[in-house]
Amino acid sequence: MATQGQVITCKAAVAWEPNKPLTIEDVQVAPPQNGEVRIKILYTALCHTDAYTWSGKDPEGLFPCILGHEAAGIVESVGEGVTEVQPGDHVIPCYQAECGECKFCKSGKTNLCGKVRAATGVGVMLSDRKSRFSINGKPLYHFMGTSTFSQYTVVHDVSVAKIDPKAPLEKVCLLGCGVPTGLGAVWNTAKVEPGSIVAIFDLGTVGLAQRVQKLLGIDIDSKKFERVTEFLNPKEHDKPIQQVIVDLTDGGVDYSFECIGNVSVMRSALECCHKGWGTSVIVGVAASGEEICTRPFQLVTGRVWKGTAFGGFKSRSQVPWLVEKYMNKEIKVDEYITHSLALAEINKAFDLMHEGGCLRCVLAMHE
Amino acid sequence: MATQGQVITCKAAVAWEPNKPLTIEDVQVAPPQNGEVRIKILYTALCHTDAYTWSGKDPEGLFPCILGHEAAGIVESVGEGVTEVQPGDHVIPCYQAECGECKFCKSGKTNLCGKVRAATGVGVMLSDRKSRFSINGKPLYHFMGTSTFSQYTVVHDVSVAKIDPKAPLEKVCLLGCGVPTGLGAVWNTAKVEPGSIVAIFDLGTVGLAQRVQKLLGIDIDSKKFERVTEFLNPKEHDKPIQQVIVDLTDGGVDYSFECIGNVSVMRSALECCHKGWGTSVIVGVAASGEEICTRPFQLVTGRVWKGTAFGGFKSRSQVPWLVEKYMNKEIKVDEYITHSLALAEINKAFDLMHEGGCLRCVLAMHE
Repeated sequence: MATQGQVITCKAAVAWEPNKPLTIEDVQVAPPQNGEVRIKILYTALCHTDAYTWSGKDPEGLFPCILGHEAAGIVESVGEGVTEVQPGDHVIPCYQAECGECKFCKSGKTNLCGKVRAATGVGVMLSDRKSRFSINGKPLYHFMGTSTFSQYTVVHDVSVAKIDPKAPLEKVCLLGCGVPTGLGAVWNTAKVEPGSIVAIFDLGTVGLAQRVQKLLGIDIDSKKFERVTEFLNPKEHDKPIQQVIVDLTDGGVDYSFECIGNVSVMRSALECCHKGWGTSVIVGVAASGEEICTRPFQLVTGRVWKGTAFGGFKSRSQVPWLVEKYMNKEIKVDEYITHSLALAEINKAFDLMHEGGCLRCVLAMHE
Repeated sequence: MATQGQVITCKAAVAWEPNKPLTIEDVQVAPPQNGEVRIKILYTALCHTDAYTWSGKDPEGLFPCILGHEAAGIVESVGEGVTEVQPGDHVIPCYQAECGECKFCKSGKTNLCGKVRAATGVGVMLSDRKSRFSINGKPLYHFMGTSTFSQYTVVHDVSVAKIDPKAPLEKVCLLGCGVPTGLGAVWNTAKVEPGSIVAIFDLGTVGLAQRVQKLLGIDIDSKKFERVTEFLNPKEHDKPIQQVIVDLTDGGVDYSFECIGNVSVMRSALECCHKGWGTSVIVGVAASGEEICTRPFQLVTGRVWKGTAFGGFKSRSQVPWLVEKYMNKEIKVDEYITHSLALAEINKAFDLMHEGGCLRCVLAMHE
């Protein structure tokens, strides 16, 4: 391509400072260096983690930056030493890398690859600890190693999943975060069996509502309730919601999932579990410094408290497999897309996220 | 036997009120009713849970009562409908019942039988909600459904494990609580694999030091340290002990066990676990109302927080199996018995428990 090895100037939504509207800017995207991949982002969705960092509540948030981590695109060019993808490949950027070589990848027990985290955690690339984004020479920080709110982005090669080129990118972009997180929380982390009674706190975030027999939804947005078999609105009960659930389910649920990031709801989610075996999985990301608490008796009497990141999926290995499952209609993705907008409307998309009825808003990056 | 169907008057250590020395009294033990078994207790050990309730810190503690729950004896007589044991059988009373019929027993997921808990939790027998112990007509509460600090006790039939009559009762009494709790925490709850790095907080309580390859012991009593491969005394470090352990083990331990009942140590035990897979098991019983806390990020990044009661063993089914393992020298018991005394010396035995170097003190009940 004519752009290979060149700086690309393109449109990106820049977060200049916390809690101020993003602005669409012409940004310069440097060529990929050793072990890096430059991707033309075609579609990106918004996720609560973007909003969290943007809000300024994330103490690790760095500004100015380019947010975004749930997207799909096409490889524009690759740096030296990149062997697993090439220009033209359809890809999903993965904020959770998979190098296959580190202690974590080799353990067989976790998907939390450690290879590039020291760099992505501080908004730079590993090879030279610098950013590939700038505006007139002033660098912009990367975000989560993905920065998909740009028409072009640069990521580490261990953070790119190559997918079936026939997959519709405007849909499968959701396989970059929300849908795998939800499915994996159920499949990999909780290992929910058929027939289980399951409680989900906040129905909006993720694709949890699949493959569960009896689903108890807890949310204060009643528009989301059509997706579950029973629902509870905590605002309609005087008793703590965990007590309401325990009473309603003859002792508690087999599995619960907290998808909001609220530490008090995390406690409810644990305590609504059945004595002896109930397992609660934290999916939501709490604000920095906040703590979860419970009486240890809750655990001694058999409840288990766990968490999940990217649903426990190994990103580069399993995102392509999830795309295949979507293509074979074995998992749902389309149903979570409630809104579609253009990049220029990104601030409206953030507003929508906080309104009832919005599950995912997908931005077309080149319209 | 001549005593069958009769009230037996025998010696027992009575806890009249919290934190006052126990007194050895002549108590009347009523005959077993429907579904009950009267046991001649030959040996009983003391455990921290006895001391906890005695201290008055247990809000569910009822006085006057007969404490004790780690013992062995011989069936003296049985009530109507009791089919699985008969007079002369050697038995271990089990504070964790196993009925085989309730939701919990049938679940296949837990050992927490629910059949008699509503009665044992309030110090009485299920059939008539009354005590079988009295002194001159004044009832004494049962404790944990076992009350083994008496020469004779009455328990529910679902709380009696029949064991090999060749087993030495002065040793296998420890299979009534401490040893199974420790072994089961490792085998059943954590499922520790060979080669794992394990941290145990407080070495005194239980038989955890078996079958673990690399064992990191954390205790403030250095007399206990000979049992581990490496040891740490938190008093000798300025940094939080979890940070010391993470540094020492290249990221944290695979499994940790908290055996003290201290909520702050429970947090350390969780946070010293390795990111991605470390599992922490709460074995100790915390004081009422105390809470465990941590940042949810600890769980989202792959640590698991669990607890165990009686090590997850099904009591009536598995205590006899543990006795066999002991007889075959596959598990250690003798090594935990550091002191032996007579029933009359029970207050001295409680004092010993709080001194360094005491693991278990066994009382001979009829000397």
